[in-house]
Order: sequence, then structure tokens, then C-alpha cells
Amino acid sequence: MNELDVPAVDDLIRTALAEDLGSGDVTTRATMASDRHARAHIRAKQAAVIAGMPLIAKVCQAAGGGVAIDAKITDGATVAKGEVLAELEGSASTLLSVERVILNLLQQLSGVATLTAKFVAAAKGNKARIVDTRKTVPGLRILQKYAVRVGGGANHRFGLSDGILIKNNHITAAGGIGPALAAARARAPHGLRCEIECRTMDEVWLAVAGHADAILLDNMSPAHLREAVTLIAGRAITEASGGVSLDTIAAIAASGVDLISVGALTHSAPAVDLHMLLSLT
Amino acid sequence: MNELDVPAVDDLIRTALAEDLGSGDVTTRATMASDRHARAHIRAKQAAVIAGMPLIAKVCQAAGGGVAIDAKITDGATVAKGEVLAELEGSASTLLSVERVILNLLQQLSGVATLTAKFVAAAKGNKARIVDTRKTVPGLRILQKYAVRVGGGANHRFGLSDGILIKNNHITAAGGIGPALAAARARAPHGLRCEIECRTMDEVWLAVAGHADAILLDNMSPAHLREAVTLIAGRAITEASGGVSLDTIAAIAASGVDLISVGALTHSAPAVDLHMLLSLT
Amino acid sequence: MNELDVPAVDDLIRTALAEDLGSGDVTTRATMASDRHARAHIRAKQAAVIAGMPLIAKVCQAAGGGVAIDAKITDGATVAKGEVLAELEGSASTLLSVERVILNLLQQLSGVATLTAKFVAAAKGNKARIVDTRKTVPGLRILQKYAVRVGGGANHRFGLSDGILIKNNHITAAGGIGPALAAARARAPHGLRCEIECRTMDEVWLAVAGHADAILLDNMSPAHLREAVTLIAGRAITEASGGVSLDTIAAIAASGVDLISVGALTHSAPAVDLHMLLSLT
Amino acid sequence: MNELDVPAVDDLIRTALAEDLGSGDVTTRATMASDRHARAHIRAKQAAVIAGMPLIAKVCQAAGGGVAIDAKITDGATVAKGEVLAELEGSASTLLSVERVILNLLQQLSGVATLTAKFVAAAKGNKARIVDTRKTVPGLRILQKYAVRVGGGANHRFGLSDGILIKNNHITAAGGIGPALAAARARAPHGLRCEIECRTMDEVWLAVAGHADAILLDNMSPAHLREAVTLIAGRAITEASGGVSLDTIAAIAASGVDLISVGALTHSAPAVDLHMLLSLT
Amino acid sequence: MNELDVPAVDDLIRTALAEDLGSGDVTTRATMASDRHARAHIRAKQAAVIAGMPLIAKVCQAAGGGVAIDAKITDGATVAKGEVLAELEGSASTLLSVERVILNLLQQLSGVATLTAKFVAAAKGNKARIVDTRKTVPGLRILQKYAVRVGGGANHRFGLSDGILIKNNHITAAGGIGPALAAARARAPHGLRCEIECRTMDEVWLAVAGHADAILLDNMSPAHLREAVTLIAGRAITEASGGVSLDTIAAIAASGVDLISVGALTHSAPAVDLHMLLSLT
Amino acid sequence: MNELDVPAVDDLIRTALAEDLGSGDVTTRATMASDRHARAHIRAKQAAVIAGMPLIAKVCQAAGGGVAIDAKITDGATVAKGEVLAELEGSASTLLSVERVILNLLQQLSGVATLTAKFVAAAKGNKARIVDTRKTVPGLRILQKYAVRVGGGANHRFGLSDGILIKNNHITAAGGIGPALAAARARAPHGLRCEIECRTMDEVWLAVAGHADAILLDNMSPAHLREAVTLIAGRAITEASGGVSLDTIAAIAASGVDLISVGALTHSAPAVDLHMLLSLT
Repeated sequence: MNELDVPAVDDLIRTALAEDLGSGDVTTRATMASDRHARAHIRAKQAAVIAGMPLIAKVCQAAGGGVAIDAKITDGATVAKGEVLAELEGSASTLLSVERVILNLLQQLSGVATLTAKFVAAAKGNKARIVDTRKTVPGLRILQKYAVRVGGGANHRFGLSDGILIKNNHITAAGGIGPALAAARARAPHGLRCEIECRTMDEVWLAVAGHADAILLDNMSPAHLREAVTLIAGRAITEASGGVSLDTIAAIAASGVDLISVGALTHSAPAVDLHMLLSLT
Repeated sequence: MNELDVPAVDDLIRTALAEDLGSGDVTTRATMASDRHARAHIRAKQAAVIAGMPLIAKVCQAAGGGVAIDAKITDGATVAKGEVLAELEGSASTLLSVERVILNLLQQLSGVATLTAKFVAAAKGNKARIVDTRKTVPGLRILQKYAVRVGGGANHRFGLSDGILIKNNHITAAGGIGPALAAARARAPHGLRCEIECRTMDEVWLAVAGHADAILLDNMSPAHLREAVTLIAGRAITEASGGVSLDTIAAIAASGVDLISVGALTHSAPAVDLHMLLSLT
Repeated sequence: MNELDVPAVDDLIRTALAEDLGSGDVTTRATMASDRHARAHIRAKQAAVIAGMPLIAKVCQAAGGGVAIDAKITDGATVAKGEVLAELEGSASTLLSVERVILNLLQQLSGVATLTAKFVAAAKGNKARIVDTRKTVPGLRILQKYAVRVGGGANHRFGLSDGILIKNNHITAAGGIGPALAAARARAPHGLRCEIECRTMDEVWLAVAGHADAILLDNMSPAHLREAVTLIAGRAITEASGGVSLDTIAAIAASGVDLISVGALTHSAPAVDLHMLLSLT
Repeated sequence: MNELDVPAVDDLIRTALAEDLGSGDVTTRATMASDRHARAHIRAKQAAVIAGMPLIAKVCQAAGGGVAIDAKITDGATVAKGEVLAELEGSASTLLSVERVILNLLQQLSGVATLTAKFVAAAKGNKARIVDTRKTVPGLRILQKYAVRVGGGANHRFGLSDGILIKNNHITAAGGIGPALAAARARAPHGLRCEIECRTMDEVWLAVAGHADAILLDNMSPAHLREAVTLIAGRAITEASGGVSLDTIAAIAASGVDLISVGALTHSAPAVDLHMLLSLT
Repeated sequence: MNELDVPAVDDLIRTALAEDLGSGDVTTRATMASDRHARAHIRAKQAAVIAGMPLIAKVCQAAGGGVAIDAKITDGATVAKGEVLAELEGSASTLLSVERVILNLLQQLSGVATLTAKFVAAAKGNKARIVDTRKTVPGLRILQKYAVRVGGGANHRFGLSDGILIKNNHITAAGGIGPALAAARARAPHGLRCEIECRTMDEVWLAVAGHADAILLDNMSPAHLREAVTLIAGRAITEASGGVSLDTIAAIAASGVDLISVGALTHSAPAVDLHMLLSLT
Repeated sequence: MNELDVPAVDDLIRTALAEDLGSGDVTTRATMASDRHARAHIRAKQAAVIAGMPLIAKVCQAAGGGVAIDAKITDGATVAKGEVLAELEGSASTLLSVERVILNLLQQLSGVATLTAKFVAAAKGNKARIVDTRKTVPGLRILQKYAVRVGGGANHRFGLSDGILIKNNHITAAGGIGPALAAARARAPHGLRCEIECRTMDEVWLAVAGHADAILLDNMSPAHLREAVTLIAGRAITEASGGVSLDTIAAIAASGVDLISVGALTHSAPAVDLHMLLSLT
């Protein structure tokens, strides 16, 4: 089993194939005999960290099978411009009908992995882990969070059900930081740490007093982050969030926080340019 | 009926809700009484062209309903930083559970619309239409192509079944540009124009001779594009493709082509920054 | 890949199996040991053009597999009464549980192919292509349109999104034939030809003037069709529609139109009589 | 609840809408303002027995709603040529996008109901009920069997799990008619009658001796049917099957059988010609 | 084909895997190399009748495959405490991710089979068959009814569409027992026996007079059951229902009824304790 | 929004309705006019803690709607034998077709809630929370875990992706308790606490030394549990697991553990006996 062997990934692949194929490839049907065979190379048109290689076989399988795949790399590999990711061989019409779905998947995921790797590199030398957020592309969360891991980052909670993050509205409803933390500790699953969002040192102080397991330091400057880290003094996991870019991350990481969450990893990563070259055989 | 009233959009919304909600919002369940009500504002944190407003109601409906929505704008509106897109009122827990799904959808689609609008503006003063490609995020093609239209662009074929685009491999398989065009004309649905990809003036010449309805001029410089447009002389629709960026599009558009296709519209549009502010009532 | 390797066909097969199998075959379960093997022949009880052969393997696969299939013909073959289409060998209970689903699929599709072939034969000697319509059996459109191609016909647009057909209501809404054609040309995808429905010579004249790519000549007599073809003079593709039967098609085809669309191909084709003979081994 | 309120019917409608709508109606989008309203009439172009009226509301609902429906008849009504079945009022684009799906459904189902009514009329004066078979169009079984009831017929078993029908292969596997009936009685659900297929008087005799609840008399002439009915003498339900047409049914019915099963009701019923006339308001 | 080769079972397995796996196994991912292999034994922690063995392969397949399965028993086997049901060998992470889904399925189904076997044993020496009801766990009906058969019981109707059971409300609506039976005989599919629920001897008398095929004797004491069986005298199948437990079933069976239906088989069977032991290789 | 407003619950309800309804209710169709109305009462036949009330409306909605529901209690209420849970009013055929699905859902969930409440009561006076496990009925996990909460229990992790539980195999693979905990801390999402399974005091000691957040004490006697709690001394959450029954739980709870997990809550809870009484109006 690899990490992408979950039913939701199969569903996404079927959806992606269905939306591209529709009722079938009219051009290929009109211009090519159905028994033509071909060999294809998937190649990077830019340097990148690649994610999504196991999806190639899944897409080919969903399109009727019969394609031999020779993967040259595995996920997490850094490829140079021009490098071959995989060779495929099989029916020319199958290869043409899976081409774009495979490329679209790999381009998006490699985009996420490549951007993550840049953030990780920029934060290097500090203990901070780069983590993702729930700001993902609808339908792609499993894949995008996987790509973040491939790129060297770590995952924040997957969604609303597998992590506690007490935000302003929860605090208001519960009657304060202390009561909110107490309620979460009393009523949420014991396997989940209680994380709470703080904007000021006063709030941080209350969160520590309330025995928060983790504190999200929202939109603080590196100086304030450092101050908060000092105040917290290891009594809670610290997460910096907001205003994080490749320009600012080194300073943020230097503040000593444990985690830096970056929405851009999944909502705005540019696609990696890949292409597939086919030769009829 | 609006343009998003198709079953596949409902399916995507259910998938998006399911992936974010999982088995339910543990934080809200632990900290907030289930009968709390709230009012929420969706606000732009940057200037943008907005797309996806009809999805707000669909997401609320899929999450159990009971939310009153007061949309302040409609799709295609250009909003300023800080402008309110919509007010929502209803159960606080419903609002918290739809918040991220709504924002993720609108951020992605508005990102596409905003980037499209920039390309359209940069090409202004020429006849060229900005069109999208099949380089879309898997599962989002209907929504992304809608957002391109909202941003002032036009759609290329949706997928492999609703447009003929004869590429190199088809030409090789059919035995040349002329035979490929003849085969497509003879065997493809009559309602589809025959478009063919050309890289050189010789190929363009053969495409015109073969009565191509449209010619994709692949990776040509503005000077070559102009030359091709002159050669074609209105006998086929002309499309420039490859190497298109906000820096190059004005020169490309000035070449006189009818269409300029831009993969980045859908594979690499940065998300627009939106947020939702909730106040408990 | 064959033309039926699209996810929607797999879905239909699962639906068909589920509706016939329900919770399982009570008769076979009660009367036959589960390890009985059998050989089966699918045979034509009448002369026919066969369509749907690749579905046999798909149905067997969806029912648990383990059936060896020896297809004697491929789609498009004309078989005589009594001719064997395929031999199957495997578990008797599997064969009995797929029998009706396979036959129902092949009977319907071969019915469409056979009727199409009759229309094609009746129109022979003229240039007219026989095309289908959107008057299909709900859920079967991909398969029925495939069967039309197998029978020698061609496909009209698949649905509302892959072809422009301007009808009376569109003309009224747009303010006339000219404005409607102009709007379609300006706003619809460039890969789609603009076809418009005309009932009179005046309308045909306006359609030509408006640069229609294709003109649907609705319910015209052969004489009027001929007149329209003359008027149009190759400036647009011509399609005859309405009142087409095996009795009338020769005269219609003789009018010189490019296309003749026949709703009956998909809404009223009688099933071809096939049966499956099983012998326990 | 009406008889069509089952989840599978909702699924079929979504499938039908999805296949016709695809990514949306390009013609209407290009030529008509999205806020146009219209009134539509669904009208019969031939005399028919109508089935499927409750589906109109379901299709409109699935397409986004907002259509007011005024049904003029209910299922089972016999309409004359030109008669109006229903008036619809709502968004013009919604009406145009549901038009063909509604018509295709009603045309198919009314075709089944109308053909069934003809068989019922031809068998009138005898006790025989006209019943359907499992020879249905894949995916449409619930709807087609409903239409048979609407047309005055009755239903045979729905599929393999809700009826026992012992055929030749089961008899061979069980070691004879008697053992097969005994096995079925011993092992099948008690709520199901045991029906067995017989081709000769000897087989009928063995079936009666084996206490069959029902006997399918396969491909017998009216004379042989009469003989079998006499032999059976009320000890089992009698079903005539095979070679049934509108020409032969009166003679078959006169033989005194209880049931006559007719595959053509569902595999080859010609569609009823209906159309929808729209007027923009 | 085995009896579980129906599409609905595949769907359930995917649902079960999806709900347990979610976005993936975080513990295994963090602590184990992805290329570790293991051997696993599924073992009974108590004596039991086992049902569900064919599901092991289906679950492994749905989780990506690559697991070799060596089944030591087949469904219906009685195992002793400690006995091995199957050995599995493959990727350690796959085995860990299918472990609970496999065990949950087998524990539930074996629970049903084991409880059924107890009822069957307790009723031994009488002709009564033990049958299930529609009181099943939502979503598991096919599997639970299969497990009842594995345990030696028989199936009552599967649902509302494959069996006639006339209850009090139907009798009231139809105007009495006689009219209700007449209506059912006239209008329901001929392959279904007409069963009716009776609470008193008077009702039983009316049911026999109305030619009921089967009579459900609701909540009668063994003495009343015996009286009813005598009254019915073989003219209808008799079913005892209500108040059936392992303590009462022998007396009920001794009354001479044909069937005893037991809701507890499927709504309250305790799970059989199974576990899976893994050893890394 | 209530806690059951998640897409997976809607899917389960559709599945449950589909499996019970099949192609429709043959008995009701044959014996009752389709326009009959009725009033129904759902009543408890035994004392119980009720869970699942919000599902009544969801089932009615999925069956076509038109039922007025007057709920007399909300989830978590303890009802006496004979108490009415809800009154429903609407079409008699709709009520008959939803009856069993509603009852099956409420019986199962109330069974879980009632059994949970018994365990909670038996452990009263101690701090221990009663928690569930992953030993759930396939497809019902969301509902069963909800019912545990309704009954006064708490939830353990939902599945493999929202909680870390390091078991024997993980420890072996990682090279010991310390390395396994270190790996989990380094590589798993920070929001998840690291729980580890221990069987001996030595293992407990290593777990504490390795900074486990929670320790599952597997199959220990109350005396050993007490010893472990003393050893751990508040440095980790303590969970007792294995051998928990209503007879043993008081002693286990008295050991001072924080959590007691009980598989039987979800794998073997007997259904609560509910029924629905209909009166035609």
C-alpha cells in the first residue's frame, strides 16, 4: 500500500478522466487506427520536486489498462529540466486519452511539493516545521497534503474532525480562553491536542495558563513571535501563522517557533511544467 | 438556471464538504451550544474579480440549510480591498462548518477570474480573445472554465470530446497534414471545426491548403505569428499558443491572431485572499 | 483503449447488473452447486449488424470475473441468423447472472446499429451522411451514439455543450437570425460550428447572409430541400431533419443535402433478437 | 409517495441530465439573457397512453428548480394527437435545458405504456394478464416496469432475486424437473412461488407432479397451450411465452392461460412522439 | 461467482475502508518503512460459525491489492477458540490498514451466523425453518441475510419489493382480510406468494378462506400456534413471529409451524471475537 | 446544523432506503389507494436512551417528502416503556415505506446509546470517561460514535487518520517504544497526541520515559491498572482496554484510569425495541 491507496483518490481519478474524456476523443478516433501503439516519455520542462508518480498507474488502469509503465523516479525526487520521469508504452489512443489527466495531476502536486521544498529550504537551520492549512483546492485535499509531505513539509489537521483549533468565535461562545480550553479538554476526543489562536501576549498568557497544548500565534511580527516563544517557554507547541512568504519565512523561523503554517502551499502553488512526448511505434 | 446548475457541481460541493467536515467539527461541538446563531460577512482582502457567488447557497444547502444569504455582488464584479461580498445569517455551527469550503471555492475561482481579467486587459485594443486550455485542476474543469468566462475570457474546447485539435501524433498517424484534415472532416461530428497545430510556415501553408477551420500556431514569436496571420489571410481562425505571459501577451495580441490560449489561467492562478468574519448573535 | 473505455460506461454496467441481480439469483442458488462450470454461446436469432461486443468482458469483470471469452466477431460485423457471436466459459452461476445484462445491452445496441445500417443503405449513392439526434434513451447516450457509428452513421452533437444549434426560441430571444448568429459567433467556443434551424427559404437566405456554418432544414419536402441546397450553394453544411423514414430517405438524400438526422435510430430501434445457450460442463 | 419515489430513479435523472447538459448549454448561453422567462407546453404529436408525468417535477428539481408545473393529466391517461400534457413556466434557460431529458423520458415510458395497452386490448375478453420480462433497457427497469403497469399490464419478477424461474440449465444441474422443484421449495425464500419452464406436455406433466406453483409454457402453439392448460387444470398458474405479437396474442389468450409474457413491451416499444413548445414571456 | 459478488457489496467495502482509513494511517506512516512486509493470521478468540470469508480478498483488493490470502476454512465452518481462519501475507502497511475493516465485517457476519446456528439447533427435530426479518442494520442487509443462510437459516423477503406481507393497515385500507387477499392476488406479481398477518383464530380462519398462501401468526403462544396449524391444515405456509428467543423457540417449533422468524438474528447478534496477529517479516 | 448533517449520513440513508424499497412496496401498491393519509406514532417497547431523532426527517425527505413530523423528545432522552418518541402524519404509502428504515436506524443507535449509558452509570463516581473503539459496524461509524456521545460516552479516534495509537507491530518496526514515540512525534501531525499500547509495567515505564501523551493499558487487571496509574502519575493520559464488561467496569474505573474503552458499545449493543403504529385517516 502506498499513501495514495485510499478510495477517495480513485474517485477523483475517475472524475478527472470523465471530465476530460467526455464521450470520447473525437480527434484520435477520426485520425488514428485503434490498433496503433506508441511509446511516451513524461519529461520535466523545469527543475522541480516531483509528487504524484503512483497516480500514473492508477489513471492508466482507470482508462482500461494495457499500458506498461517504467517509472524513472519516485515521489520526492528533485528533477532537472529535461529529465524523464517515466516511460509509458501501450495503445496510442489510451496514451493520448490519459496524457492530460496524468499531467494535470502531476503538475499540480509537483507544484505543491516544489513550493513546499522552497519554504523548507528557506527556513533551514531552525527547528520550525513547515505545515499546510485547510486552504486547499476543493476535492484535492488528500493529494495536496500528500504533496506537502513529499516536499518536506508536515501536515496540520486534515479537516474539522481531526484537530482542535479554538478560534475567536469559539472563545467568545465559550466565555473566554480559559473556559474554551476547559470545554475542549472535557469534551473533545482525548487523542487530539488543544490548540488555540492568540493575537496578543495577553491572550498567549491566558492560553498557557489554560494549559493549551499548542498555540497559534496569529499574524505576529518576528519580534512578537520571539517574545511569545519566550513567554510560552516550551509549555505549548508554537505555531506562527499569517503573513508568511518566501521573503519573511527565514525571520519567522528564527523566532524559534515550532511550526509555521503556509496557506500558499496549497492555494497558490504554481503548476510545474511537464509534458509528455509520444512516438508511434 | 444559472450556469453552475449542473449535477457535477453538486457532486464537487458534496466532496469538498465531506473532506473538510469528516465526521464533524470537534472544536465547535466542544465549545459552542448548538443553538447559537451568528451573522457572517465574506470580505475581500485584496482587489479582485469575483467568481463563484452562486456556490454559496449550494454549499449552505448541502450542509443542512437554514442559512439566509444576502449577496452584495454578482459574479464578474470587481471588488476593492475590504469590500463585502455577502452577508450570511444562521446557525453558528453551520456557518463555521461551511466557512472554509465556501472560501476555498471562491478563492480559487476568483483567482482564475482575476488572472483572466489581467490577460484580457493586457491584450486590449486587439481583436484577440483570451481562451483557456485543458490544463485545469482535476475535478474543477467546469468551475474553472466558468471562471475564465466570468473574467472576460472565452473557452477553448472543454475536453477531448467536444473539439477537434489535430496534433503532431495525429498528423503522423494519418500520414500528413492534408490526410489528417481530410480524415477529421470525413469522420468527426460536423458541428466541430477542424483545428490543427502548426509549428512552421510550411505547416501553416499545408493546413490552409487542407482547408483547416482553425490553426493553432504553436510557440511562435510575435513576428512569426504576424507572418502566419498574413499567410492565412482570414481563411482560418488563428490561435497563438505557448510562451504566453502578462509580459508577452500585448505583443502576441498585436500580431493579429484571433485567439490566445493561456494555460496559466487555470493551472497556476494564485488564489484571491478572502475571509469570513463571524459575529455571534 | 476502445471507444467504450469511459467511466460512464462502467457505471451503467454496474447499474444494470445491480438492477438485475438485486440481492442475488435465488433460482440458481437453490438448484445448482456453486462450483458447476459451463460453456455458453451467444447466438443471433436474426440477421443483424452487431454492436457492443467489448461490453461482454466488462460485464463479466463487474460480476466477479473468471469468465474466458472467445469473441467470434467484432463490432460492425453483419451476422446471419444462427451465427455465433461469442463463446464464454466459466462458473455456471456467473454465466447465468450476466446472461440477461449482456443480452439486453447487445440487443439494444445491435438494434441501433442494424437500423442505422438500413438507413445508410437506403441513402446510398448520395453524399448524405446519416446522423443521430439527442432523442436517446436516458442513460444510454454514449452507447447508442457509438452504435450509430458502428452501423455506418455519424454523430450529431452529443449534448447541449458540444454543439451549437440555434432554434426558434434562441432566434426570438436574440432578435432575429442575423443577431443570433452574430451572438453565437461572438460568444460560443470557437471550435464549434454555428448551426441554425430554418423552415422557409427566407430563413435560409437570412442564415446564409448571417454566415451560418450549417443549416438545419426543418421538415422540408425533398423538393424544398433541393431548392434550399441550390440556394445555399455550398456556403453552409446542409442538414435535413423531420419526417425521415426508410420510405422517404432515398428521396431526401437525392436532394443533395450533406446530412440527414434520424431520431428513430435511437428512440425507436427494435431490439435485435439474441440468445445465450448454456451447456453445463 | 408515488411509485417513482425510489432513489434509483433520482440517480437515473441525474445521469440523464448530466449526459445531456455536459458542461452547459452553449447555444442558450450565447444567445439568450439569463433572466428571460418562458412558458412551455408539452404536447402529444400522436394518440398515446402517457406514463412518466411525475418525472417532470423531478427533472426540473434536479436542474435547479424554479419551474412551476401544471400537469393536465395523470399517468395512464389516453391522450389524443395535439393534446397538452402539461404547462411549465419558469426560467427560459432552465426550460431549454430540461426539455430533451423530460421528453426522452416521457417518450420512452409512454411508448411502453402505449404498446402494453395495445396488447391488453388485443387479449381482452380472456382472463390472461399481459406481463413483462427481464428484457429491458439497461438502467431503465424500474421505469419500464412501472410503464407496463400504467399501460394495464402486470409485472413478472423484477430481477433474479425476487422470483424463481427454473430454466433448462437449472433442471439439468438439479437432475430433473422433480429434483429442481424440490430443491427450490427447500432452499428458496418461502414467499416466492416456484415457476418452471416447460417445452413439452411431458415436461408439463412432470412439473405438475412436482407441485410447481407456476409453469412457463415456452414457445407453444395456441393448440398446445390449450392442451397444457387442460392438463394443468388449475393446479398451477400458466404463463405463455415466446412468439407473442399483436397478431398472435388473441389466439394465445384464447387458450386460457393466466399470463402472457411479452419481451417486446420493454425491448422494442417505439417511442411516442411528444414535443415541447416554448414561448418567451 | 460467489453469493457476495454483487455491486452493493463492493460499495459497502469501499465505504467501510474510506471511513476507517480517512486520509491515511498516520501511525503506520510515522513509524514503519513503507516497504516492510508481514504475515498475518486471523484467529477466532471464541468458538463460532464463520461467515464472510470471501470478503477478505475483496477488502484487500479495494485497498490496493498485493496481499496473498490463504483461507483455511470456508463460510459455514464451525471454528474452535484459537483456530486460524486465514493467513495473509503482503505489505505491512496494507495489512494494518485492512485489519479492522476485515475484522469488523467478519465479526458482525459471524455473529449473525453463530446466533442463527443456535436458533437452528434449538429448533432441531421439528420441521420449522428459522428465517430472518427486515430488522437489519441499515446498509448491511445483503450481508446479514447471507450470514443467516450460512448459519443454517433461510431468508424471508429481502425488502418491500420481493414479497407480499399484508399487515393490519393494508387490511384496514382494503376493507378486510378477504378483500386484501383478493387485491393482492389480482394486482401483485404472480411470482410472489400472498402472506398475511393474523393475530386471532378468527383472522386465521378468514385468511384460509381468502386463500392466503402463507399466514404469519403474530405473537401467539405455542398452544395457539398449534391450534392455528391444526386449523390451517396445510392449506397455507405457517410462520410464527414475535416473542421468539433461544428459551422459547423449542416450544414454538414443536407447534408444527413451517417457519419461525427471528428479528434478533440481524438486529442484536453479538459480534464474534476475532483478532489478527501480525508478524513483520 | 446538527451533528448528523454530514454528506456520509445522507448517503447511508439513501442506501438503507434503496435496500428496503427496492423497486417499490408491492403489498401497499396492491392493497391501498395512493392518496390515503395516515398518522403514525413511534413508540418505545422498552425503557431506553434514544439516539437518532434527527434521522426521521432525513429519511422522510429522501423518500419524497410530504411528512409532518412532531418529535416529542430529543436525542439523549431516557424514555419509559410505551412512551411516544414522535408523531408523523402524511401519505400512508410514504409512512409504510419509511417505517422500517427509520426503526432500524433508531433501534441500532438507541441500542448503542442505551448500552453506553449503562457503562457510564456503572463507572460513576470515578473520573474515568467511557470511550468507544474502531470496532464498529461497517458503514455506521459516524452514527455509532454519535450514539456513544448521546449515551454519555466520549469518542476515541474516529479512524486511522485522526489519532496516533502505536501498537506492538509499530514498536517492533520502529525498534522499540522509545524510537516509536520519537518517530511519531517527529513525523505525525502536531495536533495529535501520541498514544501507545503497553502490556507490562516495564513497557509503561518506557512509555513514560519516551514522553507518551497517552498510554493504553492493554488487558490489565484492576490491580495492575492501579499500579500503572501510580507509576504514570499524571504524566500521561491513561486508558484501560480489554476485558471490560458491565461486571468489571466498576473495579476498572476505581483504578483511577482516565479512559475506559469498550468495544462492545458498537459491535454488540442489542437493538432497542421500537415500533411504529399507523392509523389511516
